[in-house]
Amino acid sequence: MTDKRSFWAWGMESREPAAADLQRGARAMSERFGTDLAPGSPPRLSDLRLRAPRVSPPKTLASFCVAETYDRAFHSYGHSFPDRVRKFRGDFSNPPDFVAYPAAEADIEAVLGWCHSNGVAVVPFGGGSSVVGGVEPPVEAPGAVALDLRRLNRVIEVDATSRAARIQAGALGPSIEAQLRPHGLTLRHFPQSFEFSTLGGWIATRSAGHYATNHTHIDEFVESVRMLTPAGTWGSRRLPGGGAGPSPDRFVLGSEGTLGVITEAWMRVQARPRFREAAGAVFPTMERAAEAARRIVQAKLWPANCRVLDAGEAAAAAGLDGSKALLVLGFESAELPQEGSMRDALELALDEGGKVVERTGATPASESGPVEKWRRSFVEMPYVWNTLVGFGLINDTFESAITWDQWPDFDRAVRESVQDALKRVCGGGTLTCRFTHVYPDGPAPYYTFTALGRRGSEIAMWKEIKAAASEALEKAGGTITHHHAVGRDHKSWYQREAPGLFLESLRAAKRRLDPNCVLNPGVLFDP
Amino acid sequence: MTDKRSFWAWGMESREPAAADLQRGARAMSERFGTDLAPGSPPRLSDLRLRAPRVSPPKTLASFCVAETYDRAFHSYGHSFPDRVRKFRGDFSNPPDFVAYPAAEADIEAVLGWCHSNGVAVVPFGGGSSVVGGVEPPVEAPGAVALDLRRLNRVIEVDATSRAARIQAGALGPSIEAQLRPHGLTLRHFPQSFEFSTLGGWIATRSAGHYATNHTHIDEFVESVRMLTPAGTWGSRRLPGGGAGPSPDRFVLGSEGTLGVITEAWMRVQARPRFREAAGAVFPTMERAAEAARRIVQAKLWPANCRVLDAGEAAAAAGLDGSKALLVLGFESAELPQEGSMRDALELALDEGGKVVERTGATPASESGPVEKWRRSFVEMPYVWNTLVGFGLINDTFESAITWDQWPDFDRAVRESVQDALKRVCGGGTLTCRFTHVYPDGPAPYYTFTALGRRGSEIAMWKEIKAAASEALEKAGGTITHHHAVGRDHKSWYQREAPGLFLESLRAAKRRLDPNCVLNPGVLFDP
Repeated sequence: MTDKRSFWAWGMESREPAAADLQRGARAMSERFGTDLAPGSPPRLSDLRLRAPRVSPPKTLASFCVAETYDRAFHSYGHSFPDRVRKFRGDFSNPPDFVAYPAAEADIEAVLGWCHSNGVAVVPFGGGSSVVGGVEPPVEAPGAVALDLRRLNRVIEVDATSRAARIQAGALGPSIEAQLRPHGLTLRHFPQSFEFSTLGGWIATRSAGHYATNHTHIDEFVESVRMLTPAGTWGSRRLPGGGAGPSPDRFVLGSEGTLGVITEAWMRVQARPRFREAAGAVFPTMERAAEAARRIVQAKLWPANCRVLDAGEAAAAAGLDGSKALLVLGFESAELPQEGSMRDALELALDEGGKVVERTGATPASESGPVEKWRRSFVEMPYVWNTLVGFGLINDTFESAITWDQWPDFDRAVRESVQDALKRVCGGGTLTCRFTHVYPDGPAPYYTFTALGRRGSEIAMWKEIKAAASEALEKAGGTITHHHAVGRDHKSWYQREAPGLFLESLRAAKRRLDPNCVLNPGVLFDP
Repeated sequence: MTDKRSFWAWGMESREPAAADLQRGARAMSERFGTDLAPGSPPRLSDLRLRAPRVSPPKTLASFCVAETYDRAFHSYGHSFPDRVRKFRGDFSNPPDFVAYPAAEADIEAVLGWCHSNGVAVVPFGGGSSVVGGVEPPVEAPGAVALDLRRLNRVIEVDATSRAARIQAGALGPSIEAQLRPHGLTLRHFPQSFEFSTLGGWIATRSAGHYATNHTHIDEFVESVRMLTPAGTWGSRRLPGGGAGPSPDRFVLGSEGTLGVITEAWMRVQARPRFREAAGAVFPTMERAAEAARRIVQAKLWPANCRVLDAGEAAAAAGLDGSKALLVLGFESAELPQEGSMRDALELALDEGGKVVERTGATPASESGPVEKWRRSFVEMPYVWNTLVGFGLINDTFESAITWDQWPDFDRAVRESVQDALKRVCGGGTLTCRFTHVYPDGPAPYYTFTALGRRGSEIAMWKEIKAAASEALEKAGGTITHHHAVGRDHKSWYQREAPGLFLESLRAAKRRLDPNCVLNPGVLFDP
């Protein structure tokens, strides 16, 4: 039997945590919280009794549609905290009625046409890695179809001269890289979900890769987009830059499946890096490390990696003693040695009181270089989280962006609110922070919290903490999301953040493109 | 008497060309075309007999509205070729009925409210530098008001930590720089219209500065925007980056006054450069120079200046012998010496067969450095053009962007079409090209044409050539405009370039924000 995606855990079935893994996870948390946590039992597909489908695919769609338990269960959720908990519990109470696996645009058009005519909700589904409730079928729909784009997975054309490639929306990160590698090219976009997220998903949610400065959001790499809607096809022209009216691509970017189904895009790709420099510097406080990062990015050195870890994160992720913040720097280039840039950056770091603790140059860089290692451990994290479910743990992340002048107050306010909520809800817990991205005008802080909840009440408890965090981000002037998207979980705060008249414009466009509101209802905004 | 803007020429009244200047312009072109061209006489304000106003400001607006001949004439046009010709002829047949000079947002709201209620067109007016018919009152309206934002001209707040400033939309380029200079900051956005274009105009038209790579379009510098519409106020949040839904700012950018009136924006500013490097290298052909530019930008060296001039432009602008193409390179930084970057860039240029003809390092740079000199001569160009009107000359520019793989064919097709049109319409003429901007995936070519038409028929003749150029850009796969905007002149080609469903989305948003369609009718798209 060939391997396939686990219907409940992050990754393939072959990597589902075994009983021993779950035991180890529970033991580690037992030690951490000084209590005795018994691991739960993972769900079994054969135990699931799904609601009978409310609608069935018509003949015209039947050849590529499936209503098996596995397919419906797998497409019930993304990978948010409540998703992970509900899946582990075997709670699949609101599955899509069937799953469509289109092989071509004509199939997608047929699905959209049928859903439009019958008022059936259609949920575009890439890798299913949403952490914000972005791929969940709407509860109130008379029927829901998951539209899984996995068969549209090819790099169709490569333009090595312009460094661009035409890529189908359903291609997963590793597949894109594998198809570009023979050309010496890379998209170089590595979100934490890299293994199980798709080009179309990245564009629909304005994904940000793990590179830290300059061109890092997927937004910057989109040269043109093709999108199918119930009202017809939307296709923009391949252009390196432009000024003709508002950017059509920027209206698709972030639309989260509510305006149409992205089928392919021309993407800006890059030559594979050959030269690499990496370094780490410790600072007495996160504020000093942040100052160093600010000066480096404002000097336009554009490091590929420029992360600031607070003392908590530096201890957990880099083995430091918990008293010092860490600045991680990396430079990469396909064309030019990077020692000069690293030297300049470290000078600024030293000037802010930093102490270099590690420096490795790998010129030319190998696949086992430090940046590649970081990337790998970064994409392994969801597998660790697979083992931390089922015994009451509440662990999640949230992220934002804020201007430098507001940063220290923002951080104080957010920490205060969330720590207060952790205490109120769970009697305590930890909250750490790092910068995942730094811009000349501000950082993108990324917070991780861990607390022990009551088994069975995790979701309600999580909701309280999550609401406190979201409320704090919004009130302190940040965005509700820098790269996790809005989905369902951030929707009410997004309504406050976005200009009201922009939401009205989105609604007006929605009525034109999707008049029966069948596209991903419940996500991003209410039409 | 204090100086004021000329109602017909580029610049202030004090710099209107004198009879001797016009004579000199005509003589130069007489020599060039081997004929005898007599200069025309400039228009006199006292000779103008404008159409009686069709509407008058109500009492509520009267205190800041003017219907004098000067004000109405000055607000009749931008600075396109047909604008220049019509102004010189004294043809002011379609002036706005009156001009509003709001001092505050409340004044703008009052104008919008009155125009909305009375179906009177309102044309947002910044510096009046449009070269695409973007500020002309619509012919068919029952009345038209020019809304001149010049009194909203302040830098209201400076955030030196985040390097950002809150700037009013009506501030002209030099005023913005003068207000930022005491803080050691600069917006560093220098379109050719710099002296007489405004922040609001730059945002509304997606202006591009004369810097050549990386962050150069005004799009990249906008942190948040405030816009007034007949339906209320649109305000986005200051954020260094984000992923919450489609970007609201990117929907305002390029809307050309059709969705609302931009009143202020938080802009990303920069420390004033202290280190500069400049160099020029010649190449046997433009293609080789283009290859060098491509490699430099794909190596992510991000030069501030990276222009490729064909042999014709290199002869005219840099005094070369007309047989060689020129690559102009510049690097700038507030923080770090730039010799290393220049060395790397020149190595790539040499590798492509370039020969360095000039190299100056100015470290630290002075205000009289080569880059500053270039900028000054660049912004002087419209004054030269002031002297080339009235005797039948047809001179204009058009611009686009195209991916590298399509570039050589694109250039061939465009040159063939336009040279053919020049020959057909004028019996010949010159066409030259330079790259104003270079992206990793393609250049932004900028063409200049000059031909001798028949005095009195210049506009009809220009229209034929312009149509041939626009048709060629569109057919060859480029954009109808990289940074001149759409206005009226590019509208029919923009309709073909933009995704049809995006135009429908714009129309749907327009109906919501400006239900009576009073905002800049005739520009960008038809509602």
